[in-house]
Amino acid sequence: MTTIQVGCDLTYSVTKPTSFLFNVAAARTGYQIISQENLQLNPNIKYVTSSLGTEDIQVYRLTVEPCDLQLQYRAIVDLSPEIYDTSGIVEAGYSQLPNEVLPYLNPSRYCESDRLTHFVLRMFGNVQPGFSRVTAICDWINCNLDYQAGSTGESTSACDVLIGRVGVCRDYAHLAIALCRALCIPARYISGYAVALQPPDFHGFFEAYLGSRWYLFDATRMAPVEGFVRIGTGRDAADASFATIIGEATLTTMAVWAEQTAPNPLLNQTVPQSAVSTTG
Amino acid sequence: MTTIQVGCDLTYSVTKPTSFLFNVAAARTGYQIISQENLQLNPNIKYVTSSLGTEDIQVYRLTVEPCDLQLQYRAIVDLSPEIYDTSGIVEAGYSQLPNEVLPYLNPSRYCESDRLTHFVLRMFGNVQPGFSRVTAICDWINCNLDYQAGSTGESTSACDVLIGRVGVCRDYAHLAIALCRALCIPARYISGYAVALQPPDFHGFFEAYLGSRWYLFDATRMAPVEGFVRIGTGRDAADASFATIIGEATLTTMAVWAEQTAPNPLLNQTVPQSAVSTTG
Amino acid sequence: MTTIQVGCDLTYSVTKPTSFLFNVAAARTGYQIISQENLQLNPNIKYVTSSLGTEDIQVYRLTVEPCDLQLQYRAIVDLSPEIYDTSGIVEAGYSQLPNEVLPYLNPSRYCESDRLTHFVLRMFGNVQPGFSRVTAICDWINCNLDYQAGSTGESTSACDVLIGRVGVCRDYAHLAIALCRALCIPARYISGYAVALQPPDFHGFFEAYLGSRWYLFDATRMAPVEGFVRIGTGRDAADASFATIIGEATLTTMAVWAEQTAPNPLLNQTVPQSAVSTTG
Amino acid sequence: MTTIQVGCDLTYSVTKPTSFLFNVAAARTGYQIISQENLQLNPNIKYVTSSLGTEDIQVYRLTVEPCDLQLQYRAIVDLSPEIYDTSGIVEAGYSQLPNEVLPYLNPSRYCESDRLTHFVLRMFGNVQPGFSRVTAICDWINCNLDYQAGSTGESTSACDVLIGRVGVCRDYAHLAIALCRALCIPARYISGYAVALQPPDFHGFFEAYLGSRWYLFDATRMAPVEGFVRIGTGRDAADASFATIIGEATLTTMAVWAEQTAPNPLLNQTVPQSAVSTTG
Repeated sequence: MTTIQVGCDLTYSVTKPTSFLFNVAAARTGYQIISQENLQLNPNIKYVTSSLGTEDIQVYRLTVEPCDLQLQYRAIVDLSPEIYDTSGIVEAGYSQLPNEVLPYLNPSRYCESDRLTHFVLRMFGNVQPGFSRVTAICDWINCNLDYQAGSTGESTSACDVLIGRVGVCRDYAHLAIALCRALCIPARYISGYAVALQPPDFHGFFEAYLGSRWYLFDATRMAPVEGFVRIGTGRDAADASFATIIGEATLTTMAVWAEQTAPNPLLNQTVPQSAVSTTG
Repeated sequence: MTTIQVGCDLTYSVTKPTSFLFNVAAARTGYQIISQENLQLNPNIKYVTSSLGTEDIQVYRLTVEPCDLQLQYRAIVDLSPEIYDTSGIVEAGYSQLPNEVLPYLNPSRYCESDRLTHFVLRMFGNVQPGFSRVTAICDWINCNLDYQAGSTGESTSACDVLIGRVGVCRDYAHLAIALCRALCIPARYISGYAVALQPPDFHGFFEAYLGSRWYLFDATRMAPVEGFVRIGTGRDAADASFATIIGEATLTTMAVWAEQTAPNPLLNQTVPQSAVSTTG
Repeated sequence: MTTIQVGCDLTYSVTKPTSFLFNVAAARTGYQIISQENLQLNPNIKYVTSSLGTEDIQVYRLTVEPCDLQLQYRAIVDLSPEIYDTSGIVEAGYSQLPNEVLPYLNPSRYCESDRLTHFVLRMFGNVQPGFSRVTAICDWINCNLDYQAGSTGESTSACDVLIGRVGVCRDYAHLAIALCRALCIPARYISGYAVALQPPDFHGFFEAYLGSRWYLFDATRMAPVEGFVRIGTGRDAADASFATIIGEATLTTMAVWAEQTAPNPLLNQTVPQSAVSTTG
Repeated sequence: MTTIQVGCDLTYSVTKPTSFLFNVAAARTGYQIISQENLQLNPNIKYVTSSLGTEDIQVYRLTVEPCDLQLQYRAIVDLSPEIYDTSGIVEAGYSQLPNEVLPYLNPSRYCESDRLTHFVLRMFGNVQPGFSRVTAICDWINCNLDYQAGSTGESTSACDVLIGRVGVCRDYAHLAIALCRALCIPARYISGYAVALQPPDFHGFFEAYLGSRWYLFDATRMAPVEGFVRIGTGRDAADASFATIIGEATLTTMAVWAEQTAPNPLLNQTVPQSAVSTTG
């Protein structure tokens, strides 16, 4: 078990009556126990905490009049990822895939897997199926994309990234998800906190469904997956925005962090051949 | 209550071991009671019937060796749509939307609502919100698109249709869904059988969430919504394909039908000002 | 004849050996006589003046070592546009179009006319052909787009603008050109100086070929076409960039102006029914 | 010198008064002498032969009433390509490029080089500049695309092909042109006849400007460039369609051929290290 302190401070200049949905809280799962948690809003507005979807996502919903809105979120998360030997992890045949996993094979707004079927067959069709094939996809993306803050935007999709060869974490995840789906491997987008991410920010990564469970992957390789604290889960980043804003508000300041508090040096000892799962 | 006989015959030439997921069965809902139902496969292959998602979708999953596969589906459906007066149907504010409805605000593969925010404000920003505004969107689409079989393909999206101004039922639905979402009206894709559709085929239409329920709409205006039998529900057509094929198979023949058996003349008496709902 | 003083000051921070092609000089045509002209470069680098294409475009080419590069261009232009009554201006049949005009019917990078054939037929197919139809296209664009600085970028095309409904002068021109070509009206992009443009900047507009000559149009309606001083001509903005930079340089300051010096009040007396041509 | 017999038979069903521009005649250049040529139209309609652009393209223009139109073109072409040793062929610096070559650096409808600058730097930035780099681009395309008749359409662009990884000759050429331009190597599209092309058809290939001349390349490698007879030259296929049709006509039959008549065995002896130029 690893204990991780996560948090974020967000400030908005709200210029019209505005509804917010914040998706910044650590998800409650069997692998991720929240031992302390605190949400502070200033002004002290009433908000509703709700669970979204079937993946234990917790969101805050609120509506405010014009003001300077400050949100402070703090949590202490006990993380118990399951670690597997990668060598035995195979791809499930389509007929073995559970029903609830099937939607994650479909193309989505930012992951146009339907346009990439020929591409993946050429590039990854002959790669050994299983964990190693998703790793090969991550390797390829990591080698062929440049990480560059500000290089892409909200409408950038996996196909755009495949052409442009530059992006940020969400773009890396989108391309990986699209390539997995085109190979008939269910894949989905995860937003979260990440220990040791530089510069600190919300992180976007993904899960692929192999054998009979979801495994965490990060094609950016910017932080160890053992230190990922899950916030949102979705088909792509469209489902996991940290803030959905209906009205008129501008983000003025933002700070995000995730720090391992115990046991100290664990995350540095990442075993390369280990597969990490935090969903059943 | 209306009684509708629906059915389809599909034949495939299967040339490799292939898994199928058929989404052709009428959904089981409180508004749509299946009094008789029969699925016949030839060769007589074992299949699994499962429910997909939370919308009572029923799919058949099976895996076959190379063969000529024939599927025959027949059902008798008792349909009890709720009919409302349109004048009182308002749009729900974002803060009133239930959590489970929120994903239908997000852009999806074929409904890039994120690219249409400026467009909808210009075109429909000043239209009276509510049922009338979704009707205005359908009117506009109906006036500004030409229905032409074969004019679009599997990768055609709402933005493509907005440029091309020609399409088939799924394109009409995708554009309507994208425009609704861009106005912050939840909208989703429905596949189904449709009485009086010419030529007979599977139909694609949509639901918009207004007030506190989903209402049926069809921008093609090719058949009365009172005669729609729901099969699948999804974010767009990517979620509601009548057949998902993993392997190698070619559709060789296809017949689809929906006929009202009782009471006879009802569907011709469509009241223009009525709103039809078949989901709670 | 109108006399117009035009000029621009551009400053670049050049950080690597860099080649520039500047397309800022007023073109030499029978309708546009340059009575005075001065180009000043600081540092005082050798440059080559050349004519590009068959449209009397004059460009400056130079290569510099890392430095702060300053360009100052000044010219006095005597403009003698031909003014025609619009009512007699018809569209030329395809077989009447001169060979040299034909390339301006083809789709180009930012004007995908091939995707808009169905759209134009629906929207403008029944509009009276001739000058009035190009005017109708400009009217429609002017009504249906919002001018917003910074809303679009270098890769934005006519189809993007048709979806986004927001843009700057080059986007207005691109959409107009694409629509004209889709109707089989040759159209091309013009960059230039524009008297009374607010805020002052380089301007982008277009010419359509009607009857047997090119006429000036501006779908933005931000400045009178009688006060347009032509710089570059091309298929779209890709051909008429004011600065092409091969190397590494950042534009640090920029000023552009165009002022009518004589006769004074003319440009305010624009006759709405007049067609303006400055190419034979 | 090689002598090549080329020809095509095209039949159209014309259902409305229709104007045609046929771009099927072998171009007249210093390297390509037409010793015999015959155009036969049935019905025997009057046509105009004109030269298009500055590249000695010869087109036939005609207008017909509804009919079955048959075009038969035959020519005997004496081809004298210049053959150079590839090792000495360098890339010209931007400042050395002649003015008339510059437009072939700009992005065009089907060659969105502006979107590929990052991609080419990553893939070909460290490849030895010169003939070898354009060869490397052709190699890469040849290895990473599958040639498949009917896989793409009229609106398919270089970026589409980069994603889809499948196409026909025009797609191979478009991608190669886009990649060259993104590297600041002028490149243009050539349509032509090709000896030994299987199945026989019009061919699409490209020229890159290196050193101080244009060299022929074909990323499909389906036929030897020494046997290419030039028809049209343009920025991309939009400029070099074998038939432009304004009206209503359907191509009903089509045959194309190119056969070397003397000296017989030459084209089989293609020297891999030779660079072929048929433009000054």
